[in-house]
Amino acid sequence: MKNTFGSSVAVTIFGESHGAAVGAVLDGMAPGVAVDEGFIARQLELRRPFGAISTARREPDAFEIVSGVFEGKTTGTPLCILIRNTDANSAAYDRDLARPGHADYTARAKYHGFADYRGGGHFSGRVTAALVAVGAIALTALRGREIAVGTHIARCGGIADRGFADMDADIAVLAEKHFAVLDDARGEAMRAAIEAAAAEGDSVGGVLETAVTGLPTGVGEPWFDTLEGQLAHILFSIPAVKGVEFGDGFAMADLCGSACNDALCVENGIVRTASNHNGGINGGISNGMPLLLRCAVKPTPSIHKPQETVNLTTGERVELELGGRHDPAIVHRARAVVDSAVALTLCDALALRFGTDYLAGK
Amino acid sequence: MKNTFGSSVAVTIFGESHGAAVGAVLDGMAPGVAVDEGFIARQLELRRPFGAISTARREPDAFEIVSGVFEGKTTGTPLCILIRNTDANSAAYDRDLARPGHADYTARAKYHGFADYRGGGHFSGRVTAALVAVGAIALTALRGREIAVGTHIARCGGIADRGFADMDADIAVLAEKHFAVLDDARGEAMRAAIEAAAAEGDSVGGVLETAVTGLPTGVGEPWFDTLEGQLAHILFSIPAVKGVEFGDGFAMADLCGSACNDALCVENGIVRTASNHNGGINGGISNGMPLLLRCAVKPTPSIHKPQETVNLTTGERVELELGGRHDPAIVHRARAVVDSAVALTLCDALALRFGTDYLAGK
Amino acid sequence: MKNTFGSSVAVTIFGESHGAAVGAVLDGMAPGVAVDEGFIARQLELRRPFGAISTARREPDAFEIVSGVFEGKTTGTPLCILIRNTDANSAAYDRDLARPGHADYTARAKYHGFADYRGGGHFSGRVTAALVAVGAIALTALRGREIAVGTHIARCGGIADRGFADMDADIAVLAEKHFAVLDDARGEAMRAAIEAAAAEGDSVGGVLETAVTGLPTGVGEPWFDTLEGQLAHILFSIPAVKGVEFGDGFAMADLCGSACNDALCVENGIVRTASNHNGGINGGISNGMPLLLRCAVKPTPSIHKPQETVNLTTGERVELELGGRHDPAIVHRARAVVDSAVALTLCDALALRFGTDYLAGK
Amino acid sequence: MKNTFGSSVAVTIFGESHGAAVGAVLDGMAPGVAVDEGFIARQLELRRPFGAISTARREPDAFEIVSGVFEGKTTGTPLCILIRNTDANSAAYDRDLARPGHADYTARAKYHGFADYRGGGHFSGRVTAALVAVGAIALTALRGREIAVGTHIARCGGIADRGFADMDADIAVLAEKHFAVLDDARGEAMRAAIEAAAAEGDSVGGVLETAVTGLPTGVGEPWFDTLEGQLAHILFSIPAVKGVEFGDGFAMADLCGSACNDALCVENGIVRTASNHNGGINGGISNGMPLLLRCAVKPTPSIHKPQETVNLTTGERVELELGGRHDPAIVHRARAVVDSAVALTLCDALALRFGTDYLAGK
Repeated sequence: MKNTFGSSVAVTIFGESHGAAVGAVLDGMAPGVAVDEGFIARQLELRRPFGAISTARREPDAFEIVSGVFEGKTTGTPLCILIRNTDANSAAYDRDLARPGHADYTARAKYHGFADYRGGGHFSGRVTAALVAVGAIALTALRGREIAVGTHIARCGGIADRGFADMDADIAVLAEKHFAVLDDARGEAMRAAIEAAAAEGDSVGGVLETAVTGLPTGVGEPWFDTLEGQLAHILFSIPAVKGVEFGDGFAMADLCGSACNDALCVENGIVRTASNHNGGINGGISNGMPLLLRCAVKPTPSIHKPQETVNLTTGERVELELGGRHDPAIVHRARAVVDSAVALTLCDALALRFGTDYLAGK
Repeated sequence: MKNTFGSSVAVTIFGESHGAAVGAVLDGMAPGVAVDEGFIARQLELRRPFGAISTARREPDAFEIVSGVFEGKTTGTPLCILIRNTDANSAAYDRDLARPGHADYTARAKYHGFADYRGGGHFSGRVTAALVAVGAIALTALRGREIAVGTHIARCGGIADRGFADMDADIAVLAEKHFAVLDDARGEAMRAAIEAAAAEGDSVGGVLETAVTGLPTGVGEPWFDTLEGQLAHILFSIPAVKGVEFGDGFAMADLCGSACNDALCVENGIVRTASNHNGGINGGISNGMPLLLRCAVKPTPSIHKPQETVNLTTGERVELELGGRHDPAIVHRARAVVDSAVALTLCDALALRFGTDYLAGK
Repeated sequence: MKNTFGSSVAVTIFGESHGAAVGAVLDGMAPGVAVDEGFIARQLELRRPFGAISTARREPDAFEIVSGVFEGKTTGTPLCILIRNTDANSAAYDRDLARPGHADYTARAKYHGFADYRGGGHFSGRVTAALVAVGAIALTALRGREIAVGTHIARCGGIADRGFADMDADIAVLAEKHFAVLDDARGEAMRAAIEAAAAEGDSVGGVLETAVTGLPTGVGEPWFDTLEGQLAHILFSIPAVKGVEFGDGFAMADLCGSACNDALCVENGIVRTASNHNGGINGGISNGMPLLLRCAVKPTPSIHKPQETVNLTTGERVELELGGRHDPAIVHRARAVVDSAVALTLCDALALRFGTDYLAGK
Repeated sequence: MKNTFGSSVAVTIFGESHGAAVGAVLDGMAPGVAVDEGFIARQLELRRPFGAISTARREPDAFEIVSGVFEGKTTGTPLCILIRNTDANSAAYDRDLARPGHADYTARAKYHGFADYRGGGHFSGRVTAALVAVGAIALTALRGREIAVGTHIARCGGIADRGFADMDADIAVLAEKHFAVLDDARGEAMRAAIEAAAAEGDSVGGVLETAVTGLPTGVGEPWFDTLEGQLAHILFSIPAVKGVEFGDGFAMADLCGSACNDALCVENGIVRTASNHNGGINGGISNGMPLLLRCAVKPTPSIHKPQETVNLTTGERVELELGGRHDPAIVHRARAVVDSAVALTLCDALALRFGTDYLAGK
């Protein structure tokens, strides 16, 4: 479905980096969910570039709710949010020069040169602002059921954050942080690594780790709409994500079954597992334990070092030196996008399982 | 869509491990594709357990093509394949004991005890036999366009295979191998590791790496139906897959942009990249380079060591010692499933891009 | 989605008239619904040709439940039913002669001659047997919520049945009838008209009228998945259906608003409408009144009179005289198919609205 | 999919009658299609109320293309159009009084009172302005392949227009007409009938008949995505449509097969049918003849005569006398909506059949 994702709760996105606006339509969200414009603004702020570790393009991200909200609450009908572009500068972009690591060449192959090439057009990470805006409403809806979502920068520039410990507390702390790490000292080291890369005209990547607490058991499908499959489907849309894993993920490949199985037990009458190597999902379905997933974020492809490329019209070899304003890292900004993508997907899975009123407000 | 995946070319699966049969409906496949029953049988054989490294359950996997084939070719209308179960032994399964690492508990939470629990029922890897059968037809259709798919065991039991080198040649060699490694000596070491784990009543996991050559440029979508997202969606359905990555994947998280960007160049008038860190995909769309992806396969959860679990009806604590016949590893068997899942997804993406006749036979 | 219909509850069909079998996969049906094989057989019998008013092809319609039923109840996982073909006679079919009013020519245009042409192949009404088989389970699931579905032959051969009066009683009576009319005398006249057409080598059409009682309010969507739109979507799949209307339908085109609006009132604390011109649906959503819809069924295109056509290979003009065994009317047989299609669609709409457990058995 | 319709080419709608705006996202449209703002404005004008036969609410329908157009052509990425509401007057609407024939009560049942009730909110025909805007682009794309779509008022207020004769010429003439009839004298009679109904505070309905020429053969599916089913699905979304028929439709119910079958012949090497009782579709697939369909449009439910209803909060009986500005007929305005809905659906079916470049501009 291209720019629409989800079945019972679905999001449709539109817009280009240097066009009039980016936006999203959130459809199927339950009625009566409180729409807190301050919280939407806060989530957009978490995605917004800041300081020396981000691009100098500074969009205010003023948003307009065009439909779907009445008297401060969701109506249950499509909610459209529009975010105008105001600080676009197209001078640095050349229609014919494909930037390595970007979608410029594949966009040309698919759209035959009609796509808006400026700033990556519809391929730009700018579009994720719209996802974050509607994702804020999804996060609010989940909170109404005491489901919490939080993401931290598990790795960046070769430096590892500590892992989740007291998950609900950690998620609460992360919600307050612009640079989402659980250990601030390591966060400082990460920022230094980003700045060092920036100083060389280079960029760094990282890993984002997301936890979800409070998700009921029995959500998801054995085939093909496993929770893992649905979440990975949307997460790979986030520009620069090149890997997704759940629970212990790739690390399980080198372990024995006896080290990966989660023993079952009963706590306060509820079935739990003693460990959580499977990240809260068995057979594609939530088991009541916290969901745990990680996304690999490749280093931003926009770097200032000279790179080999070709002129897409003439086929000539070109040595490209990118001007413009670019992020030396996006992993810290992508974190708000991951939270939103996860929240939207869970809203859909919950509505499919328990009906469209499950997340409804009072 | 639960048990249906794909849009223009879609597959629907059904069946339980100890029921009458497993099967699949392949819908939307182009007409005129030769259906070679010998090749289907061969693909099923690649998935079938063998030797000391697999379960003792030995299904002949005799299949029946129920519809959609006429005079040896696909008709263009739904193709149903049925594979009867003949060697099921339900004695070892207990309705109330949730096996750790399995879906027994989540199945109970979702289906309230009505699901067939024997051998994991519909959650069983047995269902992948049906995927492999229709996947064989998808692989044939792709070959008609000179698109080749191949998967090797990149890691197993802590031992690494060599990587892809001459991809088309490597893919051709893998097609002949029951235990799909590129370096047979390392393959022997992997098999020894599996047997060692089996001797201890334990199991091992691994990593499968898949290459696709010949895929045209311009296939896939920027949002949400990126090639990565579509492939990951189906790959996470394969039981035990807990991670999926493309190109250099998680390794990119620790690298700089200058080490991850693929410089563009022109070879014989065609735009190529000098390296392939992005695994043939930029912005969700194929760039004409080989597709490269890896799946993390967790160790088989069915182990013979004692494990803690609970009786799902009484809530009592139980020490479980699994009898029955189990695989000490499935990574070598899952390889045929990954090939099939990838092939089916690419057939769908190609039909969406170039129309329903793109893969049609003559 | 071609041969798959539905979202939360979906049906996938396969098979050809003269192939090995026809069948269907019912996916997403709630667990615990009693599967009464006698009732499935009965529904198939209602669709089966009988007497002088039907084709002489007599399929026993023995069905096999391949998956999805355990201990007599639905498991919640895909339920596949297979119905073998046993009485096919392909001698009367010519690959190159397009029968007027049939899909022979369009099948050739779409599938380039690879489709099974015998008996119409996958286009055959024979495939509806599979819909009826899984539809029986949908009807059972609805009865568990006291939702009843019934269809009568409102017109046939120019003769009109009486309309619905006491709907629940009428639906109960129709369930017992092979030739589904509310007024048996008019039914006799219809059958005489069918026989008269048959005697001339011709065929007749008709109108089927369906009522649904007990449907809760608030089911359906304002756009695009209106109840009308979803129902019409599947109903137009039934071969020979060329029109669908709801409530007073086309008759409303000539009336004034004051004659079409249904005044609201309260009965026993429940909002009702005094009349039901809108057929139980306003704004695409159920209003708690009985659903009322009608399908126009064109006369069977297989007639024995000489007809003009062309040889699809040579392009030559041909005067066609169909041999073979054909139905002079299918409207009485299509009735069971309409019941099934309506029931499947409502199960889907209810599961989307109220969750996947809404129709679950105990 | 609620507010999204289509698969390869999809439209998503949003907005409420008295909210900030209505709008639509057109996704998957081929790149390079010329976007003529004058033509969009013209199509919106055809939908706009005018004269004594329409509501006094007069929206200028100034639209903004927010995304998806670059240098005057479609980019291939999502195209969002926004139409601001400027002339809304909410004073005449009462939150608690369900207007008979409207969706007020069903909206309350579904959205628990959170939906915007003013002017029908998201249920309002106002939303169709957005469909018309993106439909204009679909119509342009089809014209690039010499596919023409046109709709006339076949009946209104009991008066019949003449049928289509020279279809391409008739479609061309209709494109110029605000009140779309083929016979102007009958059009005058229809307008008189509308005015007469308006004078009594009542309303009238009608029938819209649509023709499509130039559609290639082989488009559509046998099950479930028949051309009829796909078109009906979207057409029933248009407020007030309560019936849809193809070819001779309901009239075929009373005819013999020999009067309904279309004899095949060859003209200039192309297979055609001598008549077109089946409306250009056999077995759900286009046969190369003109598509012909009709929609029954019920009389506008907003009438000024006193009506019985209930207060949805108190349950009290109320005699309702609607104030506000209402259409005594909408059939003449709905015509532009039907053209758009048909065009969007055909773009989707063509892209699915022939690939996403089929409608691409140069």
